[in-house]
Amino acid sequence: MLHLDTITKDNWITAISLRVREDQVKFVASNAVSLAQLNFLENFHAKGIYHDKEMIGLALYGIDEDDHEYWIYRMMIDHKYQGLGYGKEAVKLVIDDIRNIKEEHHKTITLSYEPTNVHAKRVYEKVGFQEVDGLIISDEQVSRFTL
Amino acid sequence: MLHLDTITKDNWITAISLRVREDQVKFVASNAVSLAQLNFLENFHAKGIYHDKEMIGLALYGIDEDDHEYWIYRMMIDHKYQGLGYGKEAVKLVIDDIRNIKEEHHKTITLSYEPTNVHAKRVYEKVGFQEVDGLIISDEQVSRFTL
Repeated sequence: MLHLDTITKDNWITAISLRVREDQVKFVASNAVSLAQLNFLENFHAKGIYHDKEMIGLALYGIDEDDHEYWIYRMMIDHKYQGLGYGKEAVKLVIDDIRNIKEEHHKTITLSYEPTNVHAKRVYEKVGFQEVDGLIISDEQVSRFTL
Repeated sequence: MLHLDTITKDNWITAISLRVREDQVKFVASNAVSLAQLNFLENFHAKGIYHDKEMIGLALYGIDEDDHEYWIYRMMIDHKYQGLGYGKEAVKLVIDDIRNIKEEHHKTITLSYEPTNVHAKRVYEKVGFQEVDGLIISDEQVSRFTL
């Protein structure tokens, strides 16, 4: 059972020490970069993904300033905990959290991944994200979940 | 002539692309890490160090939550611009900026560096920082400037 917890001054160093698998480095910005970006995002949340008391991943999500809908900007599971189904469970937790905090008019959660990132594609599709046909932003396939 | 400019959503990616010289990597956290930390610091400023329109370095400074005095937590010049005296000039700009924003009761600026970082030691001493005898925090020598 996983849970989410806000990134604060007490756990951010743990967060930036997490790493994806070597072959996925090209797909995901480092957590230091994600937290650097957090300074400049309004209405965004950085949450540690916890297995019991251990942070095993990071999620960055909030209201995009362009379309005013929820976006997941970043989602990673540390390499030591990959392949155990935690990615799927973590995405569900993020969806639940967005359901809890969103306002009535928010209807979708959007994200994107590199077309060659078949692992991300599979995880998100299992949870119910659907690729938006032909919508590629910054070379990434856009995928959307209806709340 | 250098100047300082606030790090915003328009220049943070430039900031995290700056690098110190290979042999100094062990002395200074990456700018992504410095900006990650910025989220969790109250009363802190991240400023790009600019030469004309080009960002050549980064400074992170503000009021320390423990002693309530000003500290420079991070200061770097990109490797392409090192050895040109910009470090010294940048530190002077930071001192001037702190003089402008500080309240009456703030009397000092403090920083620390690894004892083996002779370059940092020299730059800060030239500008007027004085090592605090025997004060080592996290293996770093503490040095202080009187405003």
